[in-house]
Amino acid sequence: MFVARQTGPQPYKKICSSTIPTTPTNQPTPQFPSKTFHKKSTTSPLLHLPPPPPTTLPLNNNQTKMPSSTKTYESRSKTHPTAAGRKLLQIMAQKRTNLCLSMDHTDPEKILSLVHQLGPKICLLKTHIDIIAFPPTTTTTTSIKSFTTKLQALAQQHTFMIFEDRKFADIGSTVQHQYRGGVYEIASWADITNAHAIPGPGIIQGLKEVADGIEEPRGLLLLAEMSSRGNLGGGEYQEKTLAMARSREWRGFVMGFIAMKEVGGGGDGEEEEEEEDFIVMTPGVGLRVGGDGLGQQYRTPEEVVGRDGCDVVIVGRGIVGADDPVAVAEVYRERSWRAYEGRITKG
Amino acid sequence: MFVARQTGPQPYKKICSSTIPTTPTNQPTPQFPSKTFHKKSTTSPLLHLPPPPPTTLPLNNNQTKMPSSTKTYESRSKTHPTAAGRKLLQIMAQKRTNLCLSMDHTDPEKILSLVHQLGPKICLLKTHIDIIAFPPTTTTTTSIKSFTTKLQALAQQHTFMIFEDRKFADIGSTVQHQYRGGVYEIASWADITNAHAIPGPGIIQGLKEVADGIEEPRGLLLLAEMSSRGNLGGGEYQEKTLAMARSREWRGFVMGFIAMKEVGGGGDGEEEEEEEDFIVMTPGVGLRVGGDGLGQQYRTPEEVVGRDGCDVVIVGRGIVGADDPVAVAEVYRERSWRAYEGRITKG
Repeated sequence: MFVARQTGPQPYKKICSSTIPTTPTNQPTPQFPSKTFHKKSTTSPLLHLPPPPPTTLPLNNNQTKMPSSTKTYESRSKTHPTAAGRKLLQIMAQKRTNLCLSMDHTDPEKILSLVHQLGPKICLLKTHIDIIAFPPTTTTTTSIKSFTTKLQALAQQHTFMIFEDRKFADIGSTVQHQYRGGVYEIASWADITNAHAIPGPGIIQGLKEVADGIEEPRGLLLLAEMSSRGNLGGGEYQEKTLAMARSREWRGFVMGFIAMKEVGGGGDGEEEEEEEDFIVMTPGVGLRVGGDGLGQQYRTPEEVVGRDGCDVVIVGRGIVGADDPVAVAEVYRERSWRAYEGRITKG
Repeated sequence: MFVARQTGPQPYKKICSSTIPTTPTNQPTPQFPSKTFHKKSTTSPLLHLPPPPPTTLPLNNNQTKMPSSTKTYESRSKTHPTAAGRKLLQIMAQKRTNLCLSMDHTDPEKILSLVHQLGPKICLLKTHIDIIAFPPTTTTTTSIKSFTTKLQALAQQHTFMIFEDRKFADIGSTVQHQYRGGVYEIASWADITNAHAIPGPGIIQGLKEVADGIEEPRGLLLLAEMSSRGNLGGGEYQEKTLAMARSREWRGFVMGFIAMKEVGGGGDGEEEEEEEDFIVMTPGVGLRVGGDGLGQQYRTPEEVVGRDGCDVVIVGRGIVGADDPVAVAEVYRERSWRAYEGRITKG
């Protein structure tokens, strides 16, 4: 059963990004300054939203070893093999949010305004820099660079990370240019990006060589499967992707997966079993089951986090398309967090 | 056996793009103005290049019905189910080239200069707009829009089409924005683009809805497999991709595949057998077998076109990295064209 429903969000403490460790440690979690983001509930006018389901869902996990989904984000933040993963898990634990906001707007000013409002609710901001309609009469420096700099400032202010959902899908030599260069210079500002495994291991190697040249932690998610109807991921494709992710060559770079349920996590051999921990992020999450007419399909936070063992819930249109995005984001945050807490207590 | 080696390129006639039919026709191919691009060989200083192999390679095709690879580009240009495909096949037939130049440079001025030199050799220019280092202090209109307009003018002048190798790989609603919008506005200037099938049919539907709003023909290639080591395409993945491509919903939009060998072409049933014709374009082609250290692998034009039934040979670094790109492009053009001619005579 869920714990009794709380009437508002739990206060969480501000984390200074600079204090987040970038190497694994067994030290106690440091205490951060006590400034809170907000103190009162913002969930009042939500009569149109369905209530959360009354019970937790059974964890859908066939692992014989202890899976990551039964461990706390806090404990994983001390042992995760990637610096970007440790930073993200610590933000999640301290801010009490496993919500990623998917920002699909195309107006840069609107995006910055929404991110400023929603920043306190999220651990991660997912962007599509290449759909934004930057003003054509300004310079790329003024428009794009200024925008990404402002995003980084908001990430610092509200303590979240930035995930450019680029879905790299080319050979190694090409993705290197796409990640580092062009007008977007993704590697310079996005903490996390993602890639399809279909081109083979060269794509990871190519991206990692760029990431290795960046001072701040950079993490990569691989797409193991997608949330869209008829997608060709999952199954054998996912198995091959997992095998690719497990290579020791990029142990400090591949931080997890975009997938519909927990991936790996139990270790694939004696040597690995203590270490393997992939952060799973899941799109296609709604407060009701449904779709968008272009193949996107939705599941609820309880299904995604509680039953299927995913870590981060990615929500876009469900929040930014709402009349009161902050209030709806809080519903998503609360339900996703409670689904996580329910999962942990069973572990 | 190959026919006796010619001492230079065959002259080909200039095609006015405006005269290329955009609907299927059984009329004779129209005659174009007789201006030739060049009259003498440019292949003199190529002692460092290996000679072409002395014999054709056996066609590697298990189709029971007559495959597209045994038909001429000219005959296919009259019946291909997509307007973009008909235009491309007619350019290939008239210009006597099945060479696509892959432009992987990042300097926009260098690109325009190379395309101006190499335009007469190619049927198609493959771009990566998102790796180009546009000057950060100019406006996006001045830099990007001006660049793509110049590319279109070169395409008109030298009669080739433009293929933005974007490798779309997201859900339908996202790729719509990526294809139409952002600072690159790909749909406005690229005749052809490509997509991975992994997100499922929604990606094709999303892109097609954008293409339907463009006046000029727009074609889509699906990635059935890749040329990089350890790629997850081919086999069952390719079969699913082919099944997706065959849907009648996007019969006038999906023009072919990026693949390593012929795909489909014999029809998948009685109703389809007269119509199916997928243009297959193949990267990873070199004059010698080899690789790039980031997983890319190379085959020769004779293997790709003559043996494996591919239509368009995509060459990048082999040409633009050469001391004399025009001369090397001519070697690729001639060898790829002769491999095609050898294939046709066996059909």
